[in-house]
Amino acid sequence: MLPAVNEVTRVTSIGGGPIGGGWAAHFLARGYDVTLYLHDKDETPAFMAILETAWKSLTDLGLSSGASLDRLKIVTNLNEAVEGAEFIQESAPENLGMKQTLYKKLGQIVPPDIVIGSSTSGLMMTDIQAGCATPERTVIGHPFNPPYLLPLVEIVGGKKTAAEAVLWAEEFYKIAGKVPLVMKKEIPGFVATRLQEALWREALHMVANGEATPEDIDIALINGPAPRMAVQGQCMAFHVACGAGGMATNLDQFGPALKLPWTRLEAPELTKELRDRMVDGCNKIAGDRGFEEMAAKRDRQIVAVLRAIRDTA
Amino acid sequence: MLPAVNEVTRVTSIGGGPIGGGWAAHFLARGYDVTLYLHDKDETPAFMAILETAWKSLTDLGLSSGASLDRLKIVTNLNEAVEGAEFIQESAPENLGMKQTLYKKLGQIVPPDIVIGSSTSGLMMTDIQAGCATPERTVIGHPFNPPYLLPLVEIVGGKKTAAEAVLWAEEFYKIAGKVPLVMKKEIPGFVATRLQEALWREALHMVANGEATPEDIDIALINGPAPRMAVQGQCMAFHVACGAGGMATNLDQFGPALKLPWTRLEAPELTKELRDRMVDGCNKIAGDRGFEEMAAKRDRQIVAVLRAIRDTA
Repeated sequence: MLPAVNEVTRVTSIGGGPIGGGWAAHFLARGYDVTLYLHDKDETPAFMAILETAWKSLTDLGLSSGASLDRLKIVTNLNEAVEGAEFIQESAPENLGMKQTLYKKLGQIVPPDIVIGSSTSGLMMTDIQAGCATPERTVIGHPFNPPYLLPLVEIVGGKKTAAEAVLWAEEFYKIAGKVPLVMKKEIPGFVATRLQEALWREALHMVANGEATPEDIDIALINGPAPRMAVQGQCMAFHVACGAGGMATNLDQFGPALKLPWTRLEAPELTKELRDRMVDGCNKIAGDRGFEEMAAKRDRQIVAVLRAIRDTA
Repeated sequence: MLPAVNEVTRVTSIGGGPIGGGWAAHFLARGYDVTLYLHDKDETPAFMAILETAWKSLTDLGLSSGASLDRLKIVTNLNEAVEGAEFIQESAPENLGMKQTLYKKLGQIVPPDIVIGSSTSGLMMTDIQAGCATPERTVIGHPFNPPYLLPLVEIVGGKKTAAEAVLWAEEFYKIAGKVPLVMKKEIPGFVATRLQEALWREALHMVANGEATPEDIDIALINGPAPRMAVQGQCMAFHVACGAGGMATNLDQFGPALKLPWTRLEAPELTKELRDRMVDGCNKIAGDRGFEEMAAKRDRQIVAVLRAIRDTA
């Protein structure tokens, strides 16, 4: 039986790079006992630098009661690292063979009722868990860099993952102060990276064609869509920008623009079904809020974001 | 001869919708005399609602000295609207025929040394200016919605636009409190919309395939890449995330991932030339700042952005 999510006090972070180290910092800030596994003792100074940087920001955002750097233990023995852990966050290098070997070992030494989450940004859990004898408790738990600041964790199981492990991870990450997003399907890149990657590849196309420099790309993002995207997301940004008609107006009116060469990425066919999914989805997010209310909140939040950026420039 | 950019005191905004109305609010907040042209007097209440909403945010961000709503004049006669204007921002509906007719008329009634900027998000100035007798002073000046908050203005001329008009627009928008981005080429969608559109189309693909809901898309953006993109842009985000190796490490190490199906958009070939352009571009932005300094600033700014969003939630 999986441990009660709200009674977890001890987690293990495997890996001391920006991701594994960042996770350790996050869990410490949320008041957990954290065991950090380093492959080599020589990685300690680099990890400590990450932790020190992260701790400043975490303190600024507000530590949980009981949070303390004294609750960190660093070990280089894997058996010792997982001992007593009630959750394991794995952030080993992005190499499938290496991860498969690691999960085979973890499958043997970690009790089968302990969930293991992988930080992988590109590999599929179905592949990672292939050689693991107890794959049912292994899930993807993909953070965004820096993992101690950005709240998102994308969660999805592999073919052999039990549904209850996915549910457990969702509840646990939420209690641990993250914003979990359980994916509908196991797709390469998950949701957030796919969105970012589409944008990134279009940026590379523009630089390759001499249409923009890296500086142009970043100026355009920072001063254009990004501050709004940070408070509203792209779906609700379009929904609210179209007034009372919302996403329905957006798609019915600007749908034909999906055929225009405004990016190298060809859009999907705008079927009635896709249109309705978008409209229903945005209406669901909006609930009973009118567009004026949402636009006013968007503006208040963009003002706050712009001031925050300006005041820390 | 074009007027001196720093002596402009009177601008005309054509169109009273969210874009034209938003521009009027912006110019008023920056201390200009503003004449707003409405196609129909009945559009006045909708415009006043936009102005009222915008003015709250603009006041919060800080008005320029002399800024006053008393300096607004609303007219429905185009000849009267452009009288005495030292700059014209055109935000008529996104219809090429309509814009061509408008620019033909503007070409006749606006003195030839007055620059006209178009807010169009999808049309090309070469097409818009086709029937204009004085096309050399017509440029694209594309804002991001809401135009009174997001600083970006993308600038590019058409085939018949004079280089000095593009330069003038860049200088004028800068003085008027915007962040101008002069484009290298006239491409459909300009820079920022192309980036946003690639992301948007990938989002539609995911919704069409049942991989994510609109809610998932927005949760992923708001809690993942967007707050970081608002402070760093995507190029510098990758540059700084790769430590001392920067963009060179990113491309040399993760270049092969550009072949992975992490989005429906196929990446360009990662030639030596493209690699060097990305690396040189990021090094230029970084100047003599080390990656630790830039990472620390990124974190401070993300903390401020997250707090700003939380405090206005």
